[in-house]
Amino acid sequence: MHKVIYDTDPGVDDAMALLFLHRHPGIDLLGVTTVFGNASVDTTTRNALFLKREWNIPCPVARGASITFDPSRQERPWPTIVHGHNGLGNIAVPETIDLPTDPRPAYQFIIDTVRANPGEVTLVAVGRMTNLALALKHDPEIASLVKGVVIMGGNFYVPGNVSPVAEANIHGDPEAADLIMTASWKVVVVGLDVTGATTMGRSYLADMAKAGGPSVQLLSDLSQSYIDFYSHLVEDGMMVHDSCACVYVVAPELFDTIEGSVRVVCGGIADGQTIIKPNGRHFPPGDWDSLPSQIVCTGIRSQQVVDLIRDVILDEGKH
Amino acid sequence: MHKVIYDTDPGVDDAMALLFLHRHPGIDLLGVTTVFGNASVDTTTRNALFLKREWNIPCPVARGASITFDPSRQERPWPTIVHGHNGLGNIAVPETIDLPTDPRPAYQFIIDTVRANPGEVTLVAVGRMTNLALALKHDPEIASLVKGVVIMGGNFYVPGNVSPVAEANIHGDPEAADLIMTASWKVVVVGLDVTGATTMGRSYLADMAKAGGPSVQLLSDLSQSYIDFYSHLVEDGMMVHDSCACVYVVAPELFDTIEGSVRVVCGGIADGQTIIKPNGRHFPPGDWDSLPSQIVCTGIRSQQVVDLIRDVILDEGKH
Ligand SMILES: [Ca+2]
Ligand SMILES: [Ca+2]
Repeated sequence: MHKVIYDTDPGVDDAMALLFLHRHPGIDLLGVTTVFGNASVDTTTRNALFLKREWNIPCPVARGASITFDPSRQERPWPTIVHGHNGLGNIAVPETIDLPTDPRPAYQFIIDTVRANPGEVTLVAVGRMTNLALALKHDPEIASLVKGVVIMGGNFYVPGNVSPVAEANIHGDPEAADLIMTASWKVVVVGLDVTGATTMGRSYLADMAKAGGPSVQLLSDLSQSYIDFYSHLVEDGMMVHDSCACVYVVAPELFDTIEGSVRVVCGGIADGQTIIKPNGRHFPPGDWDSLPSQIVCTGIRSQQVVDLIRDVILDEGKH
Repeated sequence: MHKVIYDTDPGVDDAMALLFLHRHPGIDLLGVTTVFGNASVDTTTRNALFLKREWNIPCPVARGASITFDPSRQERPWPTIVHGHNGLGNIAVPETIDLPTDPRPAYQFIIDTVRANPGEVTLVAVGRMTNLALALKHDPEIASLVKGVVIMGGNFYVPGNVSPVAEANIHGDPEAADLIMTASWKVVVVGLDVTGATTMGRSYLADMAKAGGPSVQLLSDLSQSYIDFYSHLVEDGMMVHDSCACVYVVAPELFDTIEGSVRVVCGGIADGQTIIKPNGRHFPPGDWDSLPSQIVCTGIRSQQVVDLIRDVILDEGKH
C-alpha cells in the first residue's frame, strides 16, 4: 500500500485526483492538507471538507497556508476564470461544512504523520508548495523520513500557463518550490510537459458519470465550467493536471523521465520558472552544482493514464 | 541583393558563415564588425582581418566592443575549449595582420552604413549583441532604418549550451540582447532550437575542402578542433550555428518560425535566457505586453541548409 498525504487546493482537477486517490485500492490516504492557490485557503479547505463528506472519505483534513512562504510576495487575484468563484466550478456548495478539520496546521500534520510512518509516506502535492516548505522549515529531518514527494507543477521544455515560462503552482510560491526541489529528498516533478498532453473529453467524463452514479456525477458537474474554460486549448475536454501526479504514484511506468538538479527562478521576468540541469550535461560552474538529483517527467502515455483514472474512479469495490 | 553587415566574433563557426556571406551571389557584404565573445576583441578582430586577407574579402572590418553593454558585469574566461586559444581552432595565425581596420568603432560603422543605405541593410549578428545595442543607444533611429536584424542566439524550447537555459551569445551580454529584442525593428532569432539540429560532418567538410581548394582547406583546418570538441554532442561533425543565421537571410523558407514578443532574463539563475510570448497566447499582464513582435525559428530543414552552405562556399563564380 502507498501511504499518501494529499496536499491540494481544490480546485476542479484537484477534485478528480482526490477521488482517484480515495478509490485506488493500492493507496492508503492518510490525510488531506489544504493550501491557498486556486482559491483562498478558506475556500479550498471548505471544498476539501465538502468533497470528504460527499464522497465519504475517512481521512482527516488539515488546513494549510494562506500566504506565500516569503510573506513579502504580493498576492494576485484568484484564478476564478479557471476554477470558478467557489473553486469548484460554481456548482452549489454550502457556505460551510459541518465537519471538523484536524486541529494542527497542515505542515504540522505532515511532520507528525511522516514521523509516525517513517520511510512510508509519499507526499503528493498538487497546489503551491507552501505547506511542504513550511514542514521542511520546521522539521528538516522529514526530508530523510518520507518515502518520496510527487508534485504537479512546473514546465521544462514546453511553455508555462501563467507566464510564457511559468506554471501556476510553482509561480504561486517560487521560494517554496525552490526549497522543495533542492531538499535532500526524492521529488518527482509532474509538470505541463506531460499534464498538458493529458486531456479527458467532456463526453468521456459524461459516460463515466452515467456509469458511476451520484459521486461521479458530482465530479462531472463541478468540471463543466473548467472544460468550458479550456476550450481555447483543448477540443471539448479538460487537462487532468493533478490526477497525473497521483497516477505516477501507482503507475510510474506510464511516464518517461529524466533526472537532474532542479531549481526555481525567484524574481524577475522568469519568476516561477522551473529549470533542470540533466545529469550528464556539463556546463560552467553554476547554480545547479552539488544539488540533489530529482526526477522530471517528460513523456506520458496519456490515453492509458486517462483510462486508469476512469477505471479507478468507477471501481467502487474498495469502499 | 541583400546588403549585409556581419557582426561576428570569429570563432570557428563564424568563419564558415563569413565565407558563405562573401561567396553568396545574392549578398553584398558591406562590412564586418567584430565583437568580443569567442575570444577577446583583439583576437576576433585579428582573426577577421586574417580571414579577409586569406579569402580576399574586399569589405572593411570595424573593431567593436571589448566588454559588456553593462560594464559592471563580470567577465568570464574565453571559451578556448570550443574555439581554441586563438579563436580559430589553434591553427597557425600570424600575431598581427598588416591590414587596417575601419577608423570607426563598430557601432559607428553600423550607424553610418545603415544611414547611407536607408531601408536596405540587414544586420546579421552572430556574437554577443553588444555592438548592435551600442548602435541603438547612440542612434535609436536606426531601428526604423534597417531592413532587418537576423541573429544567431538564444534557445526557446530546447536546453541552453552555457547554462541549462542560456545560449552563449545571449548569456555573454544579456542586457544588450534584451535591448535588441525589445527595440522597434524586426529581429529574426536563429537559436539553438534550429542550429543545434544542424550539423556538418567531418567527412562532408573534407570533401568540400577537396573540391574547394586552399580557401576551403583553410576553413576545414580551422574547424578540426571544434569538431573534436563537439564529439560529446555530435557524431563526428560540427554544429554550424552562425551559418544558419546567414542562410536565413537568403532562404527563410528553410525555417519554421513563430512570432511574438521576446525578452532576455538579466540576472539570477536564468541569466541570459531568451523567452518568447507567442502572439495569440494570453497570460496575465506581464513583462511581455506591448512589445514589438519578433520572429523566432523553431524548425529547420537541416540537410538543405547544410547543402546550401556547401554549394555557396564551393561556387566561387562570384569572385
Ligand atoms: Ca491543484
Ligand atoms: Ca559567433
